Order: sequence, then C-alpha cells, then structure tokens
Amino acid sequence: MEDKNRANQSMLVMKEGSFTAFLKESLKGISQIIYIENTITGLLILLAITVSSFSLGIIALLSAMIGTLVAKIGGADRTLIRQGLMSYNSVLTGLVLQTFLTGPTAWIVALVGAAITAIFTATLMYFFGNVGIPILTLPFILLTWFTLLASYKLEGIKLSDSLSPQSLANWELHIEGKINLLQSTFNGIGQIFFLTEAIPGLLLFIAVFWASTKMGIYAVIGNVVACVAALALAGEHALILLGLYGYNAILTILAVSVVYNTKENRYAPITGIVAACITVPLMASVSIWLLPLGLPALTMPFVLSTWLILGARKILPNI
Amino acid sequence: MEDKNRANQSMLVMKEGSFTAFLKESLKGISQIIYIENTITGLLILLAITVSSFSLGIIALLSAMIGTLVAKIGGADRTLIRQGLMSYNSVLTGLVLQTFLTGPTAWIVALVGAAITAIFTATLMYFFGNVGIPILTLPFILLTWFTLLASYKLEGIKLSDSLSPQSLANWELHIEGKINLLQSTFNGIGQIFFLTEAIPGLLLFIAVFWASTKMGIYAVIGNVVACVAALALAGEHALILLGLYGYNAILTILAVSVVYNTKENRYAPITGIVAACITVPLMASVSIWLLPLGLPALTMPFVLSTWLILGARKILPNI
Amino acid sequence: MEDKNRANQSMLVMKEGSFTAFLKESLKGISQIIYIENTITGLLILLAITVSSFSLGIIALLSAMIGTLVAKIGGADRTLIRQGLMSYNSVLTGLVLQTFLTGPTAWIVALVGAAITAIFTATLMYFFGNVGIPILTLPFILLTWFTLLASYKLEGIKLSDSLSPQSLANWELHIEGKINLLQSTFNGIGQIFFLTEAIPGLLLFIAVFWASTKMGIYAVIGNVVACVAALALAGEHALILLGLYGYNAILTILAVSVVYNTKENRYAPITGIVAACITVPLMASVSIWLLPLGLPALTMPFVLSTWLILGARKILPNI
Repeated sequence: MEDKNRANQSMLVMKEGSFTAFLKESLKGISQIIYIENTITGLLILLAITVSSFSLGIIALLSAMIGTLVAKIGGADRTLIRQGLMSYNSVLTGLVLQTFLTGPTAWIVALVGAAITAIFTATLMYFFGNVGIPILTLPFILLTWFTLLASYKLEGIKLSDSLSPQSLANWELHIEGKINLLQSTFNGIGQIFFLTEAIPGLLLFIAVFWASTKMGIYAVIGNVVACVAALALAGEHALILLGLYGYNAILTILAVSVVYNTKENRYAPITGIVAACITVPLMASVSIWLLPLGLPALTMPFVLSTWLILGARKILPNI
Repeated sequence: MEDKNRANQSMLVMKEGSFTAFLKESLKGISQIIYIENTITGLLILLAITVSSFSLGIIALLSAMIGTLVAKIGGADRTLIRQGLMSYNSVLTGLVLQTFLTGPTAWIVALVGAAITAIFTATLMYFFGNVGIPILTLPFILLTWFTLLASYKLEGIKLSDSLSPQSLANWELHIEGKINLLQSTFNGIGQIFFLTEAIPGLLLFIAVFWASTKMGIYAVIGNVVACVAALALAGEHALILLGLYGYNAILTILAVSVVYNTKENRYAPITGIVAACITVPLMASVSIWLLPLGLPALTMPFVLSTWLILGARKILPNI
Repeated sequence: MEDKNRANQSMLVMKEGSFTAFLKESLKGISQIIYIENTITGLLILLAITVSSFSLGIIALLSAMIGTLVAKIGGADRTLIRQGLMSYNSVLTGLVLQTFLTGPTAWIVALVGAAITAIFTATLMYFFGNVGIPILTLPFILLTWFTLLASYKLEGIKLSDSLSPQSLANWELHIEGKINLLQSTFNGIGQIFFLTEAIPGLLLFIAVFWASTKMGIYAVIGNVVACVAALALAGEHALILLGLYGYNAILTILAVSVVYNTKENRYAPITGIVAACITVPLMASVSIWLLPLGLPALTMPFVLSTWLILGARKILPNI
C-alpha cells in the first residue's frame, strides 16, 4: 500500500499539472540556501545568478531540479522536498563545480555532482538528526572538496587553473590593498553564490528583504561586522574587498540570531554578532589548513561557527 | 556470578576441545573481511594468501587468533566473537603492516597492531552502534595510517621504501599504459588482501562463490563496472591494471546490494552499481588527500561510499 | 521563574561574598586539568605555573575566571561550574596561546581564546554527551590549532617563531642525545602545563599527591612506562628528555586506571599501562600528521588513547 503510494508519487512528477509544483520545489531549493522557503526569493536569486553568468543560471536551476528529483525517486519525506531542504546543497554543488571545472565534461560532472549531493544530503541528515543539529551546507562542502581533489588523478575531471596547492613553509602574508566597505558588502552576499559584482549583489539583497526585512537587516549587520573584524585583525585587504570575509558571517548571523534560535536564547542577537566575528579567524584557519591541497574554504567557517553556537546552546541556554 | 562465567570463558580458550572452536572463530575472522561467516571460505582465503607469500599467511592466521583472543579476554559478546566480527580488522592490520614494514621487528609491530586493532574495533563498534551504521574496515584503516606515520619518528618501526610523501604542488598525472580487463579483475579481488597475482585472485573468487553464488556474481560486476568507470574518467591505466580501482568497488557493491540491504530498498542492485562507480572518484580523492603524507588509501573509499548509501537509506528508503 | 533564577544567579557573581566562591570555582578549573576537584591543588598548580613565569600565572588565573564567567552568563548547570568542569579547557587555551603568540596583542588573543573555549566546551559536551564519552581536553586542542593556523593570514595574531611547518618529504629522524629518566619525569608532568623545569615539576607532583596518593603513584608509573616505551621504540632522545613522551601518558593512565574506570573493568591497572604505552606511537603519528602545518600535538595523543579504551570498554567490559 505504502509502496504503491510511493510509486504514484514518482509518476506524479511527470504529470503536467505537477510540473509547476516541481518547479516551485526546485526554486525553494535555491532560496533555502539562505534559509528562506519562498518561490519569489528563489526566482530573484536565480535572476541574480543568471545576470552574472547565463550558464551558471542554467546549472543552478538544473541542479535544483536534479536534487529534487533524486529525493523524490529515493522516497524522501514529501514535506522536506516541498520545503526545498533536500536540494539546496545540490544547487551549491552545481554552481561551484561549474565555476571551478573546465573542459567539455564540466557541466556533466557538475550535474552528476548535484545528484550525488542529494544522496549525501540524506546521509548527513540522518547522522546529524541523531544529535539534533542541522547539516547546513556540509554536504556541498565535502562533496566539492572530494571532487576537486579527484581531478588530480582523473583526466575526465579538469580543473580550471584557479587552484594552486602550496606548501605552508613558503607562505607569505601581504595585507596591503584598497578597501571599500560598500563594495565588500555587496561582494559578501554575492560570494554565497560565487558571484562578485554589484548588480547581482543588489538583487540578492532584494531577494532576502523580499522574504523578511529582519533577515535583510541581520545580513547587512553580519556582513559589516565581519569586515570590520577582519580589518581589526589585519586580514588581507584584497580578500576583504572580494567579500571573502563576509559571506560566512551573513549565513552565520542569520542561522544564530534568526533561524535556529528560541525564546530561551535571550542573548541571541549579541551571540549572532559574536559568531559572525568568529567566522573571520575561522576563515583564516580553514584556508591555511587547506593550503597544501589548494582547496577553497567554501562555507566551512559558517558551518563550524554555527555548530559551535547551536551545540553550546544545549548547555548554555542563554546564549 | 557473571564474573565467574567470564573467567571460565577465558579459561575455556586454553582447553583442548575448544581449540578447534577457537580456530574456527579465527577462520571466520578471515572470511568476514568479505562479509562471509564460513570456515571453508576463511580457509580458502588463507590458502590464497599463503600461496602468494608464506609469511603473510602465517601473519594472517596469527592476527585472526590474536584478535579473537583479545575480544575473549576483554569479555566481548560471544556471538560477535563466534561470527568473526571482532577479529577481521585485526587480520587486515596484520597483513598490511607486514607488507609495509621491514626490519627484524616488523612482525612484532604487525601482531601488536592486530591486538590493538581488536580493542579499536570495540571502540568504533560502540561509537557507530549509536547511529546504527556498521564500522566496516575503519579500525584497520585508521590504525594502519597511525602506525605508518609513527614510523617517521620512531626508529623501532621501519617502513619499507614503498611510501613516498609528495607535495601536491609537484604532482603530475600520466594516465598512459596497457590495459587488460581480465587481469584487472583478478587483481581487484586480490588487492582486498594486498595480493596482485592471478592464482591467489582465482582462489579468492572460488572462496566467494563457495559461500554464495550471488555474492560472487556481484563481486565480478562491481569490479568490472569500476574498471570501466575508471577508464571513462581517464584514470591512470597502471593503477587500473593493478586492481587499485577495483577492490573498493567489490566490497562496496557487496555491502550495498547483498549484505546491508532490506526489502524496502527496491533499487538496491542499481544503487550498488552506482556506489561501486562512486568509489572511483573517491579512490582518486583519498589518494590525493593522503599524498603529502605518503599514505595508501586502503579501503577508505569503500567505507565512505558504503556509509553514503547506508546513511542515505534512512531518509531515502527506495535506494 | 526559571529565567528569574538565572538572572539572579548571574548577579550573584558580582556580590562580595560570592567572589570567594567564584575564586574557588576558578581554582577548581585549574585543578580539573588533572581530574582533581580541589582548591588547594588548584592553588599549588597556579604556584607552579607562576614560579615558572609570572605572566603565565596571571593568564592561567584570568582564563579560569573568564571560563567560569562565560559558563555562568550562558546559564550552565551550577554543579558543572562549581566542579570546575566548564573552565579547565579555558585555562589550557590561555596558557598555550600566551606561550605560542607574541606581540602586544598576545594576551588579548589568549583571553578571548579562553572565552571562546568555554563556549566550545559546552558544544562538545553536548555532542559527546550523546555517546557518553568525556570531552577531556579536546576543546582546548582544536581551538588552539585553529588559532595558530589563523595567525598565518591575520597580522593581528602573531606567532612567536617556535612553529615551523615542514614538508614530510624533507623529514629526517635523528634520535641521538642524552637521557636522564629523573629529569624526563619532572618535565613530563610539567609539560601538561607547558613547563619544563624541576621546581615547577616538583610542585605539580606535590599538587597531585596532596589530592590523592593513588593518583600521584599512577602519574609516576605512567610517566616512567611511557619514557621506557619511547626508548624501546627508539624515539628522539631530546624529546624524551623534554618530557614530550610523558605528559600524555600521565593524563591517560589517570583517566583509564583511576578516574573513568568502574568495578567491572577488572584489568583497569594493566589497561592503563597499555594505554600509556599507546600514547607513545600516537604522539609520533600526531606530530608527523601535523608536520606540514607546523602545529604542536598538544594533548591529542592522550585524548585518542583514552577514548580508545573508554569506548572499547562498552564492548569489552573486562579491560
């Protein structure tokens, strides 16, 4: 009986009427990257990505659809699928692989990566469900790292030349460079989706404010606070300008102060700002830790900082 | 009362009659490496190892006995011991350390390693028991990595010269080389036990088919599928020929499609083939990730690919 | 109602009478580093640290107070705070960052690090609480590694020149050097607190014996056994003399044979000695594993060896 239901459910995807539903679920997969379950926000984000690069836009939409489809075929809980929670990691994987890979097979690898990310999302959901902690963007991060490393031994996966593994013994720090806080802020939100231009940044802010003014304000605060912290700790100005010290802070402050907090966490707004600041040294550490392998930090600093607080709250309920 | 029972149980090991039982348990420890609880299969595997190298055969049997003994002294559940589940990791540790180490103390290190692996098996069984996921060969993998690294700082543990740590910045990929799919297949099953010859490979296939035709067929399929995937992704031909892209796939397809699946997982055969293919990029990634330390990937790709599916099944029951 | 209680509790810290209580809790935070809940032991350890370096003594006390304060503000369980269990990791972080960092901001980083360690302690307590395994010194270890790595990319965090990342390919082992077992023993207990002199070592032994003769005797045994094991495995004599093969063994044998064992673990004294020996190859492995990043092993070998046994005991109750 249950089996039959599931079979029907799979078939429903193909029906005409439900294609709109399927598209909506996929767009929610895009908006869930910033914790928002909203078709319009998803559409605005997709627009921001497409404005920056047409092919990235296509990959983003296809990855969302593939992630949703894998979850459906696998028989995931319908509510999870409908909220876009099974596919947002697939979108990120598709985007990042399309950005970092090159050659004629790049888009195949990106889309296969998006499909495996949907399976991996389920795996980590199960493991972390046991401890009651959200998986955030971990599936996308780990799958991307594995795929980028695999390229060194498989000619079928071709890296664009933007990765450069380097021995830490040869590392030298140069922090000089121009700073423009406004530009850093737009780049900060853009970097969540691997974008670094003003127009897509603006569209992304609109996408967030459309869904929730509170989230929009927190996003700006987290971003600015992290840039100031990075300046105070004397980080590289070039990276601050590119928004690379801001995107983790945005995701973190939203998670800590808006999405995963309860009434009990009375200092949640302050904790969110502290957590946003903590992403700055974490970004530095994770980058150095990955230096010998030449991997990008992605949103790992956000994941670590957010888990730090969400886990600690079970023992320190006030924060 | 319970204490007394345990004491008696320990003494029983020494009694004459129970030595046969003890030997059977140890042989099952050898067969459990490929999920089989069968004395004859264990004996055939031991024969395959001994044909390839007499000293490896001795170490394999002694490691199985040591692992079983440690579990008995520690007071492990008798059923677990009887099924060989407490000692298969010890066998693998003994084999790999004997292979990678040299000097007069190599066999002592191998046997002490086998003993500690039995303790470590218990540790990980407890940790993973909480999430309901099998530990597979993780104890052997981690213990081997730790031991090989320790050799750099302790002259008492001597590496044979087969390890060569290398900076990723200096890495160059050359995929050229001959390919022979039949030879790759025999080497693939052999590599599970660190063997690379035709006769031992043949004996190992007989050992699997003896216990279960279904498992034998899946083993062949997984092996061939992975070799084809490695060719399609343009991996190094020399490694494919050595069976290094096959052994993880065999263990993975058996775990996913034969051993740990339930009726609910209706796509289990297809999922097994997909999981076997996923071991190929995983093998590449894990190797590159370990390159700066010069460590072998061992069966880590199998462990990761199998956990990916077994965890995901709790959320995606169809796969 | 509960909220009000917590508010009152926070205010109490400020009251005159309770400052003594607060100081006691902080001193217990210092003594808990070696599993002891005893104000006098805490005071003796603080004295040992201060004798070695006045500024380290100040940092130790301030870190303990900060850790305790963060736990109070966060609303942690009062019993945990009173026993010093929320702050001992903060003390270690303060000490190690003050030791490894330099420049005018070093002490600020050390104290902020101590504060974040208290939050991180709560996080890991929650995660490990689920599996029933103590967190030991893990929060301090991970936070220190992250902070030291961050220094490479943030000029505001300045490393003293004692770290030197090195490619494993260039590593050469030289074990020659003088050995003095008595000096090694005093250095061994000192290294727990990053000290390497005879007088502080002596004071630390007094601190342990004051609280428990049994613990004192085990500390000596663990230390000596590990030094002998390191000699037998032919480790670098210079490191043995500095106590670097001893401090992990002390913490491990105390954990395994005195603190976390139950009546059921009938071989606990022997298991403790085995676990102390296992810290020796673990120290070697962890050091080599961290070599490319130039990080110190800290008490990671102790954590791993202790978890090995504590986890295994759930399956092997006799050990």
